[in-house]
Amino acid sequence: MSRIWNFSAGPAALPLPVLERAQRELLDWNSSGASVMEQSHRGKRFIAMTEQIEADLRELMGIPSDYAVLFLQGGATQHFAQIPMNLAGEGESADYIITGHWSEKAASEAAPYVRVNVAATSKADNYLRMPSHDTWHLDPKAAYVHIATNETIHGVEFEDVPRVGDVPLVADMSSNILSWPVDVSRYGLIYAGAQKNIGPSGLVLMIVRRDLLERQARPMAKIFRYAEHAANSSMLNTPNTWGWYLAGLTFQWLKENGGLQAMAERNRLKAALLYTAIDGSGGFYSNPVDPAVRSRMNVPFTLHDSALDSLFLQESEAAGLMALKGHKALGGMRASLYNAVPVEAVQTLVVFMHDFAARHG
Amino acid sequence: MSRIWNFSAGPAALPLPVLERAQRELLDWNSSGASVMEQSHRGKRFIAMTEQIEADLRELMGIPSDYAVLFLQGGATQHFAQIPMNLAGEGESADYIITGHWSEKAASEAAPYVRVNVAATSKADNYLRMPSHDTWHLDPKAAYVHIATNETIHGVEFEDVPRVGDVPLVADMSSNILSWPVDVSRYGLIYAGAQKNIGPSGLVLMIVRRDLLERQARPMAKIFRYAEHAANSSMLNTPNTWGWYLAGLTFQWLKENGGLQAMAERNRLKAALLYTAIDGSGGFYSNPVDPAVRSRMNVPFTLHDSALDSLFLQESEAAGLMALKGHKALGGMRASLYNAVPVEAVQTLVVFMHDFAARHG
Repeated sequence: MSRIWNFSAGPAALPLPVLERAQRELLDWNSSGASVMEQSHRGKRFIAMTEQIEADLRELMGIPSDYAVLFLQGGATQHFAQIPMNLAGEGESADYIITGHWSEKAASEAAPYVRVNVAATSKADNYLRMPSHDTWHLDPKAAYVHIATNETIHGVEFEDVPRVGDVPLVADMSSNILSWPVDVSRYGLIYAGAQKNIGPSGLVLMIVRRDLLERQARPMAKIFRYAEHAANSSMLNTPNTWGWYLAGLTFQWLKENGGLQAMAERNRLKAALLYTAIDGSGGFYSNPVDPAVRSRMNVPFTLHDSALDSLFLQESEAAGLMALKGHKALGGMRASLYNAVPVEAVQTLVVFMHDFAARHG
Repeated sequence: MSRIWNFSAGPAALPLPVLERAQRELLDWNSSGASVMEQSHRGKRFIAMTEQIEADLRELMGIPSDYAVLFLQGGATQHFAQIPMNLAGEGESADYIITGHWSEKAASEAAPYVRVNVAATSKADNYLRMPSHDTWHLDPKAAYVHIATNETIHGVEFEDVPRVGDVPLVADMSSNILSWPVDVSRYGLIYAGAQKNIGPSGLVLMIVRRDLLERQARPMAKIFRYAEHAANSSMLNTPNTWGWYLAGLTFQWLKENGGLQAMAERNRLKAALLYTAIDGSGGFYSNPVDPAVRSRMNVPFTLHDSALDSLFLQESEAAGLMALKGHKALGGMRASLYNAVPVEAVQTLVVFMHDFAARHG
């Protein structure tokens, strides 16, 4: 079979040139006579690679020098817990902005380690809009404010960085990191599971202002301390070497393709194509999210008649369009339009959708 | 460059047929039109794969049905901490048998979560032998007894399963799992980082008796609870899908090559070849470990004159023998002889060593 268009929410499509290069050098990486997976992480070749990867990422995102860059494990979910373990002292509280499934989960996994203050939530609106900023009850003494910049399931995204004063802003950017430029200096800590815009699953990228690493943390094993990971260049223990390598190939691909500004333009175009098709379908398809905060990365939509869902999935798969089934929490469909999904894929999808609606409308 | 012989302690050599197959299907796995890295872990194809992998491992190791099999993240080091979090109640103690660097580290990472009782240690012997069983001070009320079945740095290995009565035996098998048959029913919990005998780094295999999952654990985030991972078939959050897939290919390769009995015979032969070369070198090479507990997997050795070390490394690399440099804690050399290292690699090494000694003896 040939390659299909992959709209998976994650693990998601990877850039084809990245996969092709990984395939070419799978048995013999960097003229070493062995796979990159077979290299000691403490070897000269591997360390030189990780240094280049960090330099590339710093250039792409404009990461200031007072931020550490870490490559960790455990998925964003583990760091829902590990962030309060590291950033909050005993008895302290943290503000959580709840805008969908993932920020809600972040708060619930944090609860054993910090007093969670739900400073704002759009749950009563079914997460179809962002909580209006004038409803946010921020605590100036909070250890940090936590947001998810994009909600993978509910399809809402922060356009701007929320103003939170001097309290460090902690952002789960799993599903929109590297999709547009961000001002890193506005954040205390940015983290992201790799399996959407970075690389394969099993890797977590963290960008953290170094002063936050100095916070007096509770007693815990070294392996849970971000300061230890930073002091050991993310090699406190054996890292996910394959994931790290593929992240590096993805960063190179981003640099060769115009960087984050070019990605931002392409991602806006892709999202506009799909939302226009949905909104212009005369109600055959619909997306109920407030247009001002619709996600450019994850587009949930429903068919006017859910009895057509299985036919839509069957025919779309036959047309080479993969992984359009929506998350079980919302039903319907979802198309994820990460960096590695080309404009051509979205064009093919909207043509299919138009045709499907014409035949079944 | 062509493939070399790789003696890395980890991330280590992978079986060549496994790498070749991964390379072949990197762009199109299982006729899906996408890479295995691009598949949703909740997709039918991926779930069918994980079920086959578990079945293959159960067959290979003879895992009884009252044991759960988990594929986790974080490296063995994270589980040094997570095991007491899950298996010990507040105020309980656990017995640790210290036989080298890794079991010592296991105890130190456990200390924030359980009262560590060093029930036996061979530290005073520089870890060159195992602590004699009659010196073990086991506590019948301990939450568990922890051992490392093989010490990657110090090159000592338990030949037999220690007798610990009714207290569950917890074993870090990172560096000798799948290298010979083991009686799983003698253990309460077996765990192993993947990057030696299983697959790439970033994956941890855990085999745990189900009743231990029911222990009353302290308050903690769900993501740290083994019971949650077991209840969710290791998909509580997005797993390391690539690592899981490669582990599966390795298990298939083991089955096609005679299983663990055949590996045991091959590994004994490889170790015998190398130890014989060392012991027969007239003192040019030496390994100081008690012959009764010498590791079949990791063979540290020194040259009689450490001034020759760098020349040995340079010439061995030129001869296509990679990663022979010893761990910095011991200096000298180390050859790791995991399953994926063929007999031919060890033959090439011992011929090189003999030749080097003849030229520099």
